[in-house]
Amino acid sequence: MSGNVFGKNFTVTTFGESHGAAVGCVIDGCPAGLKICEDDINADLSKRRPGNGDASTTRVEADVCEILSGVFEGVSLGAPIAIVIRNTNAHSADYAPLKDVYRPGHADKCWDEKYGLRDYRGGGRSSARETAGRVAAGAVARRLLAENGTAIKAWVSAVGGVEAPGFGEAGFLMEEIDGNSLRMPSKSAFEKALALVKKVKADGDSIGGVVSCRVTAPPPCLGEPVFRKLDALLASAILSIGAVKGFEIGAGFSSAALTGSQNNDAPLGLDLSANNAGGTLGGISTGLPLEFSAAFKPAPSIKKEQRAFCKDGSIRDISIKGRHDVCVCPRAVPVVEAMTALVLADLLLENRSSRL
Amino acid sequence: MSGNVFGKNFTVTTFGESHGAAVGCVIDGCPAGLKICEDDINADLSKRRPGNGDASTTRVEADVCEILSGVFEGVSLGAPIAIVIRNTNAHSADYAPLKDVYRPGHADKCWDEKYGLRDYRGGGRSSARETAGRVAAGAVARRLLAENGTAIKAWVSAVGGVEAPGFGEAGFLMEEIDGNSLRMPSKSAFEKALALVKKVKADGDSIGGVVSCRVTAPPPCLGEPVFRKLDALLASAILSIGAVKGFEIGAGFSSAALTGSQNNDAPLGLDLSANNAGGTLGGISTGLPLEFSAAFKPAPSIKKEQRAFCKDGSIRDISIKGRHDVCVCPRAVPVVEAMTALVLADLLLENRSSRL
Amino acid sequence: MSGNVFGKNFTVTTFGESHGAAVGCVIDGCPAGLKICEDDINADLSKRRPGNGDASTTRVEADVCEILSGVFEGVSLGAPIAIVIRNTNAHSADYAPLKDVYRPGHADKCWDEKYGLRDYRGGGRSSARETAGRVAAGAVARRLLAENGTAIKAWVSAVGGVEAPGFGEAGFLMEEIDGNSLRMPSKSAFEKALALVKKVKADGDSIGGVVSCRVTAPPPCLGEPVFRKLDALLASAILSIGAVKGFEIGAGFSSAALTGSQNNDAPLGLDLSANNAGGTLGGISTGLPLEFSAAFKPAPSIKKEQRAFCKDGSIRDISIKGRHDVCVCPRAVPVVEAMTALVLADLLLENRSSRL
Amino acid sequence: MSGNVFGKNFTVTTFGESHGAAVGCVIDGCPAGLKICEDDINADLSKRRPGNGDASTTRVEADVCEILSGVFEGVSLGAPIAIVIRNTNAHSADYAPLKDVYRPGHADKCWDEKYGLRDYRGGGRSSARETAGRVAAGAVARRLLAENGTAIKAWVSAVGGVEAPGFGEAGFLMEEIDGNSLRMPSKSAFEKALALVKKVKADGDSIGGVVSCRVTAPPPCLGEPVFRKLDALLASAILSIGAVKGFEIGAGFSSAALTGSQNNDAPLGLDLSANNAGGTLGGISTGLPLEFSAAFKPAPSIKKEQRAFCKDGSIRDISIKGRHDVCVCPRAVPVVEAMTALVLADLLLENRSSRL
Repeated sequence: MSGNVFGKNFTVTTFGESHGAAVGCVIDGCPAGLKICEDDINADLSKRRPGNGDASTTRVEADVCEILSGVFEGVSLGAPIAIVIRNTNAHSADYAPLKDVYRPGHADKCWDEKYGLRDYRGGGRSSARETAGRVAAGAVARRLLAENGTAIKAWVSAVGGVEAPGFGEAGFLMEEIDGNSLRMPSKSAFEKALALVKKVKADGDSIGGVVSCRVTAPPPCLGEPVFRKLDALLASAILSIGAVKGFEIGAGFSSAALTGSQNNDAPLGLDLSANNAGGTLGGISTGLPLEFSAAFKPAPSIKKEQRAFCKDGSIRDISIKGRHDVCVCPRAVPVVEAMTALVLADLLLENRSSRL
Repeated sequence: MSGNVFGKNFTVTTFGESHGAAVGCVIDGCPAGLKICEDDINADLSKRRPGNGDASTTRVEADVCEILSGVFEGVSLGAPIAIVIRNTNAHSADYAPLKDVYRPGHADKCWDEKYGLRDYRGGGRSSARETAGRVAAGAVARRLLAENGTAIKAWVSAVGGVEAPGFGEAGFLMEEIDGNSLRMPSKSAFEKALALVKKVKADGDSIGGVVSCRVTAPPPCLGEPVFRKLDALLASAILSIGAVKGFEIGAGFSSAALTGSQNNDAPLGLDLSANNAGGTLGGISTGLPLEFSAAFKPAPSIKKEQRAFCKDGSIRDISIKGRHDVCVCPRAVPVVEAMTALVLADLLLENRSSRL
Repeated sequence: MSGNVFGKNFTVTTFGESHGAAVGCVIDGCPAGLKICEDDINADLSKRRPGNGDASTTRVEADVCEILSGVFEGVSLGAPIAIVIRNTNAHSADYAPLKDVYRPGHADKCWDEKYGLRDYRGGGRSSARETAGRVAAGAVARRLLAENGTAIKAWVSAVGGVEAPGFGEAGFLMEEIDGNSLRMPSKSAFEKALALVKKVKADGDSIGGVVSCRVTAPPPCLGEPVFRKLDALLASAILSIGAVKGFEIGAGFSSAALTGSQNNDAPLGLDLSANNAGGTLGGISTGLPLEFSAAFKPAPSIKKEQRAFCKDGSIRDISIKGRHDVCVCPRAVPVVEAMTALVLADLLLENRSSRL
Repeated sequence: MSGNVFGKNFTVTTFGESHGAAVGCVIDGCPAGLKICEDDINADLSKRRPGNGDASTTRVEADVCEILSGVFEGVSLGAPIAIVIRNTNAHSADYAPLKDVYRPGHADKCWDEKYGLRDYRGGGRSSARETAGRVAAGAVARRLLAENGTAIKAWVSAVGGVEAPGFGEAGFLMEEIDGNSLRMPSKSAFEKALALVKKVKADGDSIGGVVSCRVTAPPPCLGEPVFRKLDALLASAILSIGAVKGFEIGAGFSSAALTGSQNNDAPLGLDLSANNAGGTLGGISTGLPLEFSAAFKPAPSIKKEQRAFCKDGSIRDISIKGRHDVCVCPRAVPVVEAMTALVLADLLLENRSSRL
């Protein structure tokens, strides 16, 4: 049931397994006339690329894309844009010992039950590598949004228990985000988090975290009042990223403890520290910045021994030897940005027909 | 763009404004042969019905439905099931003073900007009354799931800062939920929460809360590995309920602070207190109970004076006089259950074709 | 799988069985600000109404609609528009003898095989009465198109072997169409066809025919180059009408015998007799009139004895006693118009986002 | 609006321009466990390949595909299957003189109006080359249908006015179809048609024709009673092929001249010459062979001089020099088969949930 297709207007289909020939996407519905080139996409891919951070896997992929269609003389045609990223550094042999083991916290067992067979090499379609296709599509969506003045910026707001200051709080530095390997908006938070990451890594373990995202100058009037609330579409987009277990927008879970008079934003919406709504009311974007966060569980692949089901029903102690992220959050930052871009681009195109 | 249509297989379209002639739904895709009658639906509607709880609006609606089609001799035909619930107790006059005011925390201003006009009576389509159609459809979905042995139960786990014990914790009593007006699973939590509700009401204010949901014996193998992850579809469904600002599944936001060895569930999945995954892995249901929560912001309509934008751009102090919920959570419980049922029924029908 | 939902932008769900409580539709995606009232819809319904023509069933239905939602003070809100038409003249008893018989040329046997049960009263959901919901939705779509200056006119171009002159040919009179009970554009053709209809009726038989449709001033640029060609969407819409077995646009089947130099329309497109393209090129509307036709098979319900399968596998001679159309074409005229309107409204709304 | 996506369950997205880097498709929803390899797909592609027939363009493309994803060890994974076919023989220079001319009978002018720019090389996305992606996807769908015993066979039933005998008629030879360059089911019809083709070619002109298709052992119960009638989906699929201007199923247009007693098929459905229904009743497949035909207009690209609009509004006499098909029908045969396979595979997967 087209579970690899996202969006109704700016429609993206992703494809590819971790250790297959390639990953990629096809974008259907991108308006004609948008300037795009492979470098735009490669720039975003490089942020997601493995091998470039303290918390990252050591698998190294060039992650250079090829645009197969839909772009002519540097401009989109209004035709489908197919983008392919070849897999070049797959160490499939690492996974042979796991062929008949269901790794805890992974989809392995579910795949076998649902599909009857499975690509056991690196998670196959359930690998985080699948998100390269999303990031490629997101790069195009971001170009479209940029034409409207909209910018999307995500960062790691917590690693394990180490929290960075929130946007607008003392110590939050937007320019710091791209300056450290954990993509945190504060140098001191980064240093504490890095120490934690190193310790966890030494333990052969992994650690969870939180990614936050802020969209400035989002188009107003995106979303619809009932099932296609902007909040709902963002939540779905973000929860579709592997390892995400929670989503909140604006005041989020903390709004549950507030009164209406505390939580209602003042009409002018000028005080950014009080954007409790997070940029939407009744499911529709107000034009104020969109602000939301996603909780990522710790990566389930760890060296530390754990008990695991095997295909034959037995239970075994396993240690997972592949090249895994200690904390997925830094590399998830461009994926959160990409999914946000896909939602907004989709609604941007839809929105043009809301009134006579 | 069909923002009032939900689901791809068990497809529900809801309709109706708060103060129009009726609200309701059409269900397309319900398999033939399901026993359903109006009483089944009325039973669920009565849980959502206004006027029956300490935290609820005093608007009284009989909320009795009529099935217009799709059921013949008490059994579904496989044809669309149209269900209508007449509005009988609309006090539209209450809203006349608000015709040109944009209520803070509501969609009023967004509606005017997006659609150019608006039904100002009680929120129109953005009213919580719209959820009656969802509950009616959900009642049919629940019947379908019940045929598979699946049961859905939600409750209020927090009102303001007053938290009830979690499922499996000491003091949690499933049978208590339907025994108190706040639908909390603990009498002592209820009493504390009720005192808070009364105080907030006396202040002319409102209060937020959390609704938690647990699905027992969910069908395994629901959901798909990428965009149609069960988690993503649930998040979208829950965030499509007005006032919801956060969603988490399994360990949710707390998993961000855990290590992989702490968070990975032991293979047997027998220890319910350690269902950190919340019943899904890689976006696919494992067959273990689904467990998730939703944060509800305080209802934005309050008697307490607040500053509001007017249509003409001026700012005015307003006090909202309608009949509003002090805490929306108790009445949101059946809506959370309904949306959960719609997601699961949709996937249940889809799931049958995942392998050759 | 939402087989009762039509359109992606102007999305219509129809519901209702022939002998149930009501038929109707919900329109999702109609822009806000459109003036609509029940009389607009009733006017179109009355053209489809049974009992008003020489070739029609004698079942008499008032076919007066009620708008339940989506319209406020005579104007669309941008919210779903639910429209209900009560069934009042169902003679279900007529069908009791057919409960266990599969009528030849009907869906009866397929229904039992596909759904396991069936509403045997008058065809249930497969009855032509289902189209009342389409006509109601089409009336709203036509209002939307009329705002753009687009008009849709269909007529009966053949009954049995009796053909009326084609549009632009000598003897074709647009104003004659609504002046005779067979909706033919020529008095002499009507008289010949009427004689045929009377003879066929006297024989207890039925007769096929052709309905042609012409859209003046269609919005240009509707449709897309590949799967959503305007031609493809129209074909699907028209073939979704029961009894339609063929569709052709522009020169249609006769173009198969032409050369390119004969068939290519001259660039100016001014000579209407040479609109071989029928108003589309490459799947996109050119702005010239859309011209297409649909072949209707003879209604399968006839008094004349025929052999039929029974539920128990036996074969029986039956004579169908209900009140049936001798030729469905005259009453199909408003249905063809409605489906055309639904396609064009759907594309009209989609079209606004095709370029940057 | 995803106009390059086809199907709801077996969902295919095609991409690629005639003179871009590649054409291809992504299939989402193919069940796991299906044996597929590149040779299966290449076999179907070779039937559509240009350069191998008397009526065909002289462009020569190897049309060898690469499967990028979704297949592991020769078996489908249940993940998206991406297939790429590189363009190798594009003579883009041929088209430079046409850069500012709108070729008659082509989408050129519509593209410019709709999208604001256009890939003028060989029709870009509107080129028949786009159908290579459909044929690749269709090859996978056919493998899926073959598992169910279903076979699809199309042929050229008319070239210009030269008609071959119909299926079941004297002179119709199924085994002849693949034995002649025009894919006609009769040697004598082929010879007459070939003479016509040669004459038309010598004139620098093109000629239309009819392709007929027959599906043996189609799965019963495919399709739904209202908008997703099998007939409607087939019509849409077939009309989505460039140059198709008409579609008929079963007795088609000839049924318009029949009476009910003539047209209703006898219950046993054993007499194939009387499959007037064409394999569907009420929009649902009966299990009898599906039989339908499509009218193709003559290819609009001709050497013969014709008048054409230019981008600047002027009118010019042009002669189109590219390598074009004299009659598109022989190469359309595998495309008709592919689209039929896509519709049936889509419904096959959907059909499993129509009853409890």
